[in-house]
Amino acid sequence: MHKKLFIPGPVEVRQDVLDKMATPMIGHRSKEASNLQRGISDKLRKVFHTKEEILLSTSSGTGLLEGAIRCSTVKRAAIFSVGAFGNRWHQIAEANNVPADLFEEEWGKGVDVDKIDKTLATGKYDVLCVTHNETSTGVMNPVEEIAEVLKKYPEVVWCVDTVSSMGGTKIEVDKLGMDICLTSTQKAIGLPPGMSICSFSEKAVERAKKVKFRGYYLDLLTLYNYIHKKDYQYPSTPSLSHMFALDYQLDRMLEEGLENRYKRHLDMAQYVREWAKKYFALYSDERYLSNTVTNLKNTRNIDIGELNKELGKRGFQISNGYGKLKGKAFRIAHMADFTLDDIKELLNNINDILRL
Amino acid sequence: MHKKLFIPGPVEVRQDVLDKMATPMIGHRSKEASNLQRGISDKLRKVFHTKEEILLSTSSGTGLLEGAIRCSTVKRAAIFSVGAFGNRWHQIAEANNVPADLFEEEWGKGVDVDKIDKTLATGKYDVLCVTHNETSTGVMNPVEEIAEVLKKYPEVVWCVDTVSSMGGTKIEVDKLGMDICLTSTQKAIGLPPGMSICSFSEKAVERAKKVKFRGYYLDLLTLYNYIHKKDYQYPSTPSLSHMFALDYQLDRMLEEGLENRYKRHLDMAQYVREWAKKYFALYSDERYLSNTVTNLKNTRNIDIGELNKELGKRGFQISNGYGKLKGKAFRIAHMADFTLDDIKELLNNINDILRL
Repeated sequence: MHKKLFIPGPVEVRQDVLDKMATPMIGHRSKEASNLQRGISDKLRKVFHTKEEILLSTSSGTGLLEGAIRCSTVKRAAIFSVGAFGNRWHQIAEANNVPADLFEEEWGKGVDVDKIDKTLATGKYDVLCVTHNETSTGVMNPVEEIAEVLKKYPEVVWCVDTVSSMGGTKIEVDKLGMDICLTSTQKAIGLPPGMSICSFSEKAVERAKKVKFRGYYLDLLTLYNYIHKKDYQYPSTPSLSHMFALDYQLDRMLEEGLENRYKRHLDMAQYVREWAKKYFALYSDERYLSNTVTNLKNTRNIDIGELNKELGKRGFQISNGYGKLKGKAFRIAHMADFTLDDIKELLNNINDILRL
Repeated sequence: MHKKLFIPGPVEVRQDVLDKMATPMIGHRSKEASNLQRGISDKLRKVFHTKEEILLSTSSGTGLLEGAIRCSTVKRAAIFSVGAFGNRWHQIAEANNVPADLFEEEWGKGVDVDKIDKTLATGKYDVLCVTHNETSTGVMNPVEEIAEVLKKYPEVVWCVDTVSSMGGTKIEVDKLGMDICLTSTQKAIGLPPGMSICSFSEKAVERAKKVKFRGYYLDLLTLYNYIHKKDYQYPSTPSLSHMFALDYQLDRMLEEGLENRYKRHLDMAQYVREWAKKYFALYSDERYLSNTVTNLKNTRNIDIGELNKELGKRGFQISNGYGKLKGKAFRIAHMADFTLDDIKELLNNINDILRL
């Protein structure tokens, strides 16, 4: 039996969107491919609230994290992490010999904006890496506050991981001054995994030109130069199946209306939070709760694996705590094309199984 | 109107295979995902004729070229190129500061095996990179002869690009001693683009352990360690849609029988070659012709763009010459799930359009 996925990616994908994944192939050097890919970038600019360039990469979000930090760092990157995916920036930097320092916050907390200010004031760093929505802890960092601080440091290229939030909450890339804002398809955008997306500001373009060894396949400047030379065709054969489905889904998203979409996500989040507070507790700082995934403290000491097994029999799946939080917390994702009714159905089933 | 793709990737994909791309999502940390991905690796071992490990990467073949050369080179890589995709190895090395030398052969020729021998005899190199099937020229390099030479150089890790040949012609990875043999899904395997595959020998594993900065997302050792720790789950969310379709298509390929599949490809190649010699000429050295794509010299000086436009109206598409060969040559791919009847239908239509 198929299980409806209330996990923070891959998310449940609508059947009409899945069907677009089965579109017959076209040549990736055809005018048709150019039109498709140019159209996708135009639509994504609306979702990202940006006038800057949009790049598509046939890779997971991790691939673009790597491309972003490699092509931005001349001096040194400051990585502010609030969980597992924040730490990933640093693992990537280390694996590529990119100079970087990791500043870790306790899991469940948001980023310390004053510390960012003090750190950048040293003048040692020309890149700031931040996770907007930390999937491992259910924290959504205050990017508006970070944006304020960054006004003082125009030499800093800002790389933001919005993998599990873009499309589910308003992220005004240009207004906030994000240079590289990256996401992937299998979260709030509501597609299968296999493609990642980023915005790439003119400032980031100029910075990348100063970095000698940026790599090849994941290099943002290589992608940027190629799509401009070849009318939005990509240097390697992209996942055309994802292109077809993404194009279709972007039309759906814009038809729903982005503000309506954000509101729907917030409604679902608030409902889960209320339920969490009634029966369990919120794991993370209430000032920085994610609108797309809620991390619940396992205050009742339930067997989360057992709960998921019972849910599975009824056609639902949630997530255990991430990494060191396994057993101590569990996560309910409320993103992409779910509605409040889907959330209620899930929570009613949990209530029933746990006799709450 | 859909055009049947006789281009060297993306290839025409059967509707039943496309339909598998629309399979509903599963959690990528589930037992179901482990089983799916372990099963795919087992089946791919048969296609690769190897007992070594198989790795899947959500990227194009170029991504795995990068992963392969980065994780193999301690001293210096010798890159023997016979065309555009051979040169790509070198562009990738340069972009990553991987020490490498490029040895280029004239387009249309096969690799000079004696030169490989003399080059490796210098002792300067610990990696050899070769393209098995050069998509830009329609040359299939004599890997059996290279394998003989390599017996003298056990310290050399052999990386082979079989992007446009694996699954369409017999490549006995273990027998030939290939350490990293890589391909991607949108060529002779007959799937949409978006996933690449490689074998990874124990010798390559040991070499990779000696390379400090191998990168992260495309690093083969990272993938290798992770799938062994997590029962064939991957470190980042993979393209599950491709996994579903690949699993299905591998069953189809094994059901057809690999030897039958190779024979079918050879039959199609020989038919196209005979037609080419009758009406045009073969571009490449007849000793090294590809079994999956034929490059034809435009001896009649036809307008290839115009021919493709007319073919398009009839529901077919072929390829112009690659890069500097545009207008001077054109390419007909005969791979994946096409049959001799499909080839005959295409060539009859070309005859009709050109009044041959």
